[in-house]
Amino acid sequence: MNFDIIRTSRAVLHVTDLDKSREFYDALGFIETESDEENIFYRAIEDHNHHCLWLKKKAEPAVEVICYKVRSENDLDELSALFEKQGRVFKWMEKGTQKAIGRTLRTQDLSGMPVEYYAEMDKAERMLQKFHLHKGAKVQRIDHFNCMVQDVEKAYNYYIDELGFSCSEYTAGEEDKIWAAWLHRKPSVHDVAYMNGEGPRLHHIGFWLKDPMTLIDCCDVLASMGLGSSIERGPGRHGLSNAFFLYLRDPDGHRIELYNGDYLTSDTDFEPIRWELDDPMRQTFWGHVAPDCWFEEASEVLDIQTGEKLKISEPTLKKRRPNTII
Amino acid sequence: MNFDIIRTSRAVLHVTDLDKSREFYDALGFIETESDEENIFYRAIEDHNHHCLWLKKKAEPAVEVICYKVRSENDLDELSALFEKQGRVFKWMEKGTQKAIGRTLRTQDLSGMPVEYYAEMDKAERMLQKFHLHKGAKVQRIDHFNCMVQDVEKAYNYYIDELGFSCSEYTAGEEDKIWAAWLHRKPSVHDVAYMNGEGPRLHHIGFWLKDPMTLIDCCDVLASMGLGSSIERGPGRHGLSNAFFLYLRDPDGHRIELYNGDYLTSDTDFEPIRWELDDPMRQTFWGHVAPDCWFEEASEVLDIQTGEKLKISEPTLKKRRPNTII
Amino acid sequence: MNFDIIRTSRAVLHVTDLDKSREFYDALGFIETESDEENIFYRAIEDHNHHCLWLKKKAEPAVEVICYKVRSENDLDELSALFEKQGRVFKWMEKGTQKAIGRTLRTQDLSGMPVEYYAEMDKAERMLQKFHLHKGAKVQRIDHFNCMVQDVEKAYNYYIDELGFSCSEYTAGEEDKIWAAWLHRKPSVHDVAYMNGEGPRLHHIGFWLKDPMTLIDCCDVLASMGLGSSIERGPGRHGLSNAFFLYLRDPDGHRIELYNGDYLTSDTDFEPIRWELDDPMRQTFWGHVAPDCWFEEASEVLDIQTGEKLKISEPTLKKRRPNTII
Amino acid sequence: MNFDIIRTSRAVLHVTDLDKSREFYDALGFIETESDEENIFYRAIEDHNHHCLWLKKKAEPAVEVICYKVRSENDLDELSALFEKQGRVFKWMEKGTQKAIGRTLRTQDLSGMPVEYYAEMDKAERMLQKFHLHKGAKVQRIDHFNCMVQDVEKAYNYYIDELGFSCSEYTAGEEDKIWAAWLHRKPSVHDVAYMNGEGPRLHHIGFWLKDPMTLIDCCDVLASMGLGSSIERGPGRHGLSNAFFLYLRDPDGHRIELYNGDYLTSDTDFEPIRWELDDPMRQTFWGHVAPDCWFEEASEVLDIQTGEKLKISEPTLKKRRPNTII
Repeated sequence: MNFDIIRTSRAVLHVTDLDKSREFYDALGFIETESDEENIFYRAIEDHNHHCLWLKKKAEPAVEVICYKVRSENDLDELSALFEKQGRVFKWMEKGTQKAIGRTLRTQDLSGMPVEYYAEMDKAERMLQKFHLHKGAKVQRIDHFNCMVQDVEKAYNYYIDELGFSCSEYTAGEEDKIWAAWLHRKPSVHDVAYMNGEGPRLHHIGFWLKDPMTLIDCCDVLASMGLGSSIERGPGRHGLSNAFFLYLRDPDGHRIELYNGDYLTSDTDFEPIRWELDDPMRQTFWGHVAPDCWFEEASEVLDIQTGEKLKISEPTLKKRRPNTII
Repeated sequence: MNFDIIRTSRAVLHVTDLDKSREFYDALGFIETESDEENIFYRAIEDHNHHCLWLKKKAEPAVEVICYKVRSENDLDELSALFEKQGRVFKWMEKGTQKAIGRTLRTQDLSGMPVEYYAEMDKAERMLQKFHLHKGAKVQRIDHFNCMVQDVEKAYNYYIDELGFSCSEYTAGEEDKIWAAWLHRKPSVHDVAYMNGEGPRLHHIGFWLKDPMTLIDCCDVLASMGLGSSIERGPGRHGLSNAFFLYLRDPDGHRIELYNGDYLTSDTDFEPIRWELDDPMRQTFWGHVAPDCWFEEASEVLDIQTGEKLKISEPTLKKRRPNTII
Repeated sequence: MNFDIIRTSRAVLHVTDLDKSREFYDALGFIETESDEENIFYRAIEDHNHHCLWLKKKAEPAVEVICYKVRSENDLDELSALFEKQGRVFKWMEKGTQKAIGRTLRTQDLSGMPVEYYAEMDKAERMLQKFHLHKGAKVQRIDHFNCMVQDVEKAYNYYIDELGFSCSEYTAGEEDKIWAAWLHRKPSVHDVAYMNGEGPRLHHIGFWLKDPMTLIDCCDVLASMGLGSSIERGPGRHGLSNAFFLYLRDPDGHRIELYNGDYLTSDTDFEPIRWELDDPMRQTFWGHVAPDCWFEEASEVLDIQTGEKLKISEPTLKKRRPNTII
Repeated sequence: MNFDIIRTSRAVLHVTDLDKSREFYDALGFIETESDEENIFYRAIEDHNHHCLWLKKKAEPAVEVICYKVRSENDLDELSALFEKQGRVFKWMEKGTQKAIGRTLRTQDLSGMPVEYYAEMDKAERMLQKFHLHKGAKVQRIDHFNCMVQDVEKAYNYYIDELGFSCSEYTAGEEDKIWAAWLHRKPSVHDVAYMNGEGPRLHHIGFWLKDPMTLIDCCDVLASMGLGSSIERGPGRHGLSNAFFLYLRDPDGHRIELYNGDYLTSDTDFEPIRWELDDPMRQTFWGHVAPDCWFEEASEVLDIQTGEKLKISEPTLKKRRPNTII
């Protein structure tokens, strides 16, 4: 491969009420870089670039695009050549089209997810050591996307064989088929996970926290602000990934994971860890059962050409969630 | 009052399998002071006395007695005089009858709970600064009992008017009746709570932890030992008491609360905090709903004279648990 | 004794620049109840009363008075009768003389410390569960005073025999004399400590924190605000008291201790813990040496009658600090 | 470059007393994979390979070699070709020569540091989720080496230009010369730092911890075991790197850093952060001054051919440490 996808780097979400969204994301400690009546651009405390989260005011909630940063402008050309060869839908958005970001390459990936690649974004002041300005969950950086798709195994093969991702952990389902897979470019557990379900939809965006206590503090802060109902699942420990986690729903239902505690996956001799779908410690190491909504609900995604919501289809594997053994 | 009840200080539990119990309580970081084939005596890391938890091997699980420490031997005589005047059932157990403890006064309190008072217990090495020997939840001290009883208001009045307890917080139920009350002698939120339900039963014993992260560590440790199913509820923040909590069930179903983060209640002008039963932040500040078993299951208690299990009766207030508004 | 001193409850400090003081104390998370051009009244997040810290703008820094809360107005009369009998200097300040507080009894204690007793203070909103408003060290409550005095043993005897304090831990110095003592009314390690040194001076005021991580967060916050030079000693673990501590100096040099992690001292059979002055683990369990300024510098205190600074005298025991063995 | 250095992966240290070393490293939570009378092989809780620390019993303490893992066997050949071309001293150690590890390439780097590259090591059970077996600092993985060398700028250029490292942060000294530099292959702050001083010597080995509280726990554990004197500096926050740190000295004086809290450095547009040598927040963000020994003492390193200790020489830049402004 002549390109280098560096990492998960931003998401563009459609939200219906910027004030409500601002109250929620401010509470998590996101830093507002810039905003107007239609947009808020947020960065996390470690970010040296303009934003990792762009909220656009729209009539309906949706995921416009999920984005990866690549090494250089040339990598974008290499990627477009690949997509052309593969017959994938893609389009260029020239520098200046979107705020604070260089030329981007948008594509509908083979699972239908709207994905964007870019190399350049404006700089912004890094707030990592402005401790007196940190709030709530003190969100440190964007970590990963979790996508609910019809055919995980197809996505798995494509991202590994064609895009150079590696697998850290996976879940085996019916007939040893891959039910879910955690794939990375940066040497963490994942930049993106694919999970079997009605799709294509974005299940959640994961953000990295500096330490586990901050996650507890965040629960307290959200609750005291009257936002306790945004807490959907957790706090808990994932068996798969080992992360200490909390799942939140933003005012439009977009799911946010706060995440801390995975491990380094840089070694070429690291062997992907296999979990059985029904292993109760897989989803929550402590044995807690995830609520039904966690398996059923996710954010709809847009067609990169029409801007319309993509049709959702039944998954390949029938099983939508683990058996809960009580 | 001519007596001074200092604090909640020990519990005597019947368990059916000492090996299983030992695995569980060792994992929580209790220090075994002494044991034989029929008994284990545990202390917590702050204790300077012989034990705060005595497990007796018996055919059936039960709570033999919950105990308070008083200022002096004379206080026991004053208490027995009070019980005599009130016509309460009580009995003396002379020094030497029970391991490591002086003379005790046992009574069946007006709710039917088996309660014991004593002034003297053998000393033991304090392990507070033996940090290299701390394990699991590093349980620091016994904090409180929670009793499920038929008539909370009657218990409330008796403990405050006759025994000198104070109320820190309470829950108002039907027709403004007290549905649950948190009562203390030491200036914390409670030494004992009374909660409306089928009783008399012991709902749980609360133990104090040194810090909130230790509670998270405890979940990880229990799960990695294969004891994840002992986690019943939490971790979470109580609205009432402000404590960061975790509820566990020991191998016989006795419920243990790990607890950190309440506040000082020493001021005479501190006004008890009232919560409405259906306030969703009362039980879990973050909005999490407690499982049904938490409201329904509790440990049976013994008759101090016959040693038989006490008959359980319907509570005065009909409502057994808050309405869950989803 | 016919009076009941409940706990350490407030301090009145003279400071020279309210803006500078406000920047510092706000950073620690104190809640400003009220202020004007000459005064700031601060409470901590657990407080249900108007203030625990009163800063008065004056030409020179000084400690006007340290205060204890008593059970009732009648206790004040009992205390004044005792002081009269003992020939101690005292004066009444009637309700209305000082902001938000009832009648107070001020005395110069036998070590020369200006001490005040009161039973009544105005109520204020308790912020314990307003987590989104907590900042910096999230100071939870006032915990104790540490006084540097000429004759610790005299103070020790007086507070125990005449005022009903108990000793939790002490330091033995020359010829087995008490070099320092930790005395309490509430069942914690202390409400007040007396330490051998040039006095009478106030060495520090200790405030209780909710957990140890908050103390680390506070260091980060102070440093990022440019207030790093206020950190004098720590973070560390005290051998004596077991507390996780941090010592700060406010803009006028008043020393503030942030403190978490001591233990319950309610038992009548708890035996005071003796430490040797030169035991290196006494002051810092991890072996860190306290800086010279920590032993030498302290806040001057006022004469309750003249309002002038009290003359400082040499201590009874020659040794001003432990031998540092390197 | 046709090779890919993945990360800092192991150190081989000479120690004089295996029992003393074992007490210390066990206390930090290292997992002993294997040992005999002359050797201990330790791994950290995240490791899936045999060891990251090899202690060899020898007459004198020394650093035999510091090691990097590379992508494949072929990378070793590419590296040897580079060293040959550059005229660097190197030697092969065939598989079987050293316990549990494949073929290695040893070299004396241009600063004189003994450095080894390898692609293959035996597998070992990963203990990341065996929480009940974690102890002390629960050391999670090896993170970096810090080398004290004569000419930092020369090392800086070589590692970046010839070996493909990137710089995250650096310290500017006299005449804008680089006084110290933090260089990485994995996208963290560093795999190796070079610092101006008498060299070549190994200043310390950094190990990653799961969270900040574990570092505090480690201080308590070491102290209660009587190993408090091993704590040399900290806990504190580094301005440079943002890490929460603790420096320890093992029984032979080898310096170990416990480390948590840096950030991701994967972006190609991340600009190295410059610090001035005398900026007091550079070394400790909170303003604490490092002790003299931290700047003066370091472990001697061996000649890869003779096995003798390398001669130490004066550094290029005269200034050995920052000015301490008090």
